[in-house]
Amino acid sequence: MQAPLIPMAAACRQAARQLARLDSGRKNAVLLAIADALEANTDDILEGNEMDLDTGRSNGLSQAMLDRLLLNPERIRGIANAVRAIAAQSDPVGRIRQLETMPSGIQVGRMRVPLGVIGIIYESRPNVTVDAAALCLKAGNAVILRGGSEAFHSNQALAGIVQDVLQAHDLSAACVTTLPTTDRELVNEMLQLEAYIDVIIPRGGEGLIRHVVANSRIPVIKHYKGVCHLYAHADADIDKLLPLVINGKVQRPGVCNALETLLVHESVARQHLPAICSALQKQGVEIRGCEISQSLCEGILPASESDWEAEYLSLILAVRVVKDYDEAVEHISRYGSQHTEVIVTESLDTAQHFLRDVDASVVIVNASSRFSDGGELGLGAEIGISTSKLHSYGPMGVEALTTEKFVVLGHGETRP
Amino acid sequence: MQAPLIPMAAACRQAARQLARLDSGRKNAVLLAIADALEANTDDILEGNEMDLDTGRSNGLSQAMLDRLLLNPERIRGIANAVRAIAAQSDPVGRIRQLETMPSGIQVGRMRVPLGVIGIIYESRPNVTVDAAALCLKAGNAVILRGGSEAFHSNQALAGIVQDVLQAHDLSAACVTTLPTTDRELVNEMLQLEAYIDVIIPRGGEGLIRHVVANSRIPVIKHYKGVCHLYAHADADIDKLLPLVINGKVQRPGVCNALETLLVHESVARQHLPAICSALQKQGVEIRGCEISQSLCEGILPASESDWEAEYLSLILAVRVVKDYDEAVEHISRYGSQHTEVIVTESLDTAQHFLRDVDASVVIVNASSRFSDGGELGLGAEIGISTSKLHSYGPMGVEALTTEKFVVLGHGETRP
Repeated sequence: MQAPLIPMAAACRQAARQLARLDSGRKNAVLLAIADALEANTDDILEGNEMDLDTGRSNGLSQAMLDRLLLNPERIRGIANAVRAIAAQSDPVGRIRQLETMPSGIQVGRMRVPLGVIGIIYESRPNVTVDAAALCLKAGNAVILRGGSEAFHSNQALAGIVQDVLQAHDLSAACVTTLPTTDRELVNEMLQLEAYIDVIIPRGGEGLIRHVVANSRIPVIKHYKGVCHLYAHADADIDKLLPLVINGKVQRPGVCNALETLLVHESVARQHLPAICSALQKQGVEIRGCEISQSLCEGILPASESDWEAEYLSLILAVRVVKDYDEAVEHISRYGSQHTEVIVTESLDTAQHFLRDVDASVVIVNASSRFSDGGELGLGAEIGISTSKLHSYGPMGVEALTTEKFVVLGHGETRP
Repeated sequence: MQAPLIPMAAACRQAARQLARLDSGRKNAVLLAIADALEANTDDILEGNEMDLDTGRSNGLSQAMLDRLLLNPERIRGIANAVRAIAAQSDPVGRIRQLETMPSGIQVGRMRVPLGVIGIIYESRPNVTVDAAALCLKAGNAVILRGGSEAFHSNQALAGIVQDVLQAHDLSAACVTTLPTTDRELVNEMLQLEAYIDVIIPRGGEGLIRHVVANSRIPVIKHYKGVCHLYAHADADIDKLLPLVINGKVQRPGVCNALETLLVHESVARQHLPAICSALQKQGVEIRGCEISQSLCEGILPASESDWEAEYLSLILAVRVVKDYDEAVEHISRYGSQHTEVIVTESLDTAQHFLRDVDASVVIVNASSRFSDGGELGLGAEIGISTSKLHSYGPMGVEALTTEKFVVLGHGETRP
């Protein structure tokens, strides 16, 4: 099985060189043509998708999994529109910042350039196939896609349409390469191709990501989990606090930017925690609290050490009363996952300190943790999220798929 | 031997949290105090250095190695002044760029933050101990230093002075941690501490770097070698070209930004290559050329495939005549090391294409390859250079030791 991967990856690297030189106008024309082709070939996509759904039903996939897998004309239109939105974004490639003249006389700047070849390993949502391909193309990168086996035929249909458009525009189909089978061994082989792939972005559960990190010789952009806190400072405005807690926990509990722990300053707790807990409980939230919160509110279960570490991804919230700001920041530092942390405060000074003191990829003052999302943060589409600091930290859009090189303009200067 | 490393690394991570919150004024005060203390304790440093020199002489180190190891009052003053220059640089930490209001009403920006704990593994120059510590402190990072065994006592003396100053300023000595012995096994243990160290920067020969990359579970910023080209385009101005070729090859042939291959457009070759080669030969440069260049010039040895790949680091230059721009760019793409590439041209259009088309961390028009250096590019001091694209590409200064997180300022916004 090793034979086919190296030539495929080599063709992809060659294609990346072609893409790196492409101007914005041509890249956008290709993206718009991809969007149109997806809509025009809806029947072919649905045919592949039906095969995956049949297999999924026979294999007893859950209704939730089948729903993630399902495509229909409306969802395909949504995928096409996401590609159009990526085409409409500004192109970072070639942008030069900070062109300055040095004492030697040379002018020095930084130019944004593509990364090269991106490897994306993801689970069953077929829309990721097109999103990832479009974001990589926009940033001038080639991509090797390895989607989940449940969506194999859907992904092949979608990628096939993208490849046809690339070829119709005199580009190599290898710009968007898909692995030929869903053999798991191929993933491990892909992770050894450091001569061809510049970075691996795994999207999926913690198990997938740990497997990729443990086996990859290529740099990996990783995101294990989101244990997000909201800290209600002594001067929190209850009219902001209550909606932010409810929104953070209840609006979509199964995602990584949902709240998992509420930290409450003791003065706020005495005054408002009973009303907050009661409002949460009315929304069906189970609360696991420290001793003080148990003494203040009804129906709270005792929290254990494991609750402070938990990413519930469900309607459970851990609650802890803290005596001051420092204790809250210390708790976040100990149990947080560097994903998203929120403070509710009316004090500019406290807000400024929190923004500096808390080490997380997204730090929020007086807004819901649910805003920690590429779209809401202004990135347009999102290729993934990084909770480690190298290269990129937080949600990643087109710019995170590029890097900067130095450019120097001289007039014949030599070094003495 | 495993026992001591984990508590040391844990103390260093704890110290990093302290440093991350330090304001610029205090960081600069510490740096200036370090510079003063280095000069005030010159005798202690020279004592440690004398021990290393004695051992080096008994072990038969070359004169060049002994010279790299040697410290004297003037060199110590130079090290102290480098620290003062780092103190004088602007502090990237806390800088917020691009604060924009989103349709939801939240304001979103990016704030520069320290990386955390930097691991530096380097060979025998003792000045790296102080340079690296000062750059990491400036960027708010703690650092674990593992210097070469030849400089062990010099490094311990220098780091000891730095640690005394840190403690005198109520900071943990663990902000600048040195490994307690030069046991090579400790390096391998250090490379497993991904829970404590955020990034490893190896500085040294290709062998050291390959060892670190192969054995590290921590992301590595790497720089294997510099196979730098100068391409003389058809319209090159000979009055610029000749000095740039001589300067690139001869001024300091043993460093990574020296020229290794000269590519000459055939029209320039016919007119000027004999004079260029003769000028190089007068400077003692051995020339290995393609068939056309051999036919045009005297005293050129035939180049083989391995010459196009060679990083000579000595007074040897490979020369190849190319028929056009595309052939030159193709040669660079095939044999270059993504370090530094130079074009000499009078055409704005050709210069613009070269800047875009050539994939290297530093791309230069009409200036010497020798400008590819942190100081010359305006970074102040340099902690290393990256020829891979993740996180940083090219010479790395203080900013490359930081990353950006998202900061969000709201007014109570929730997501619908």
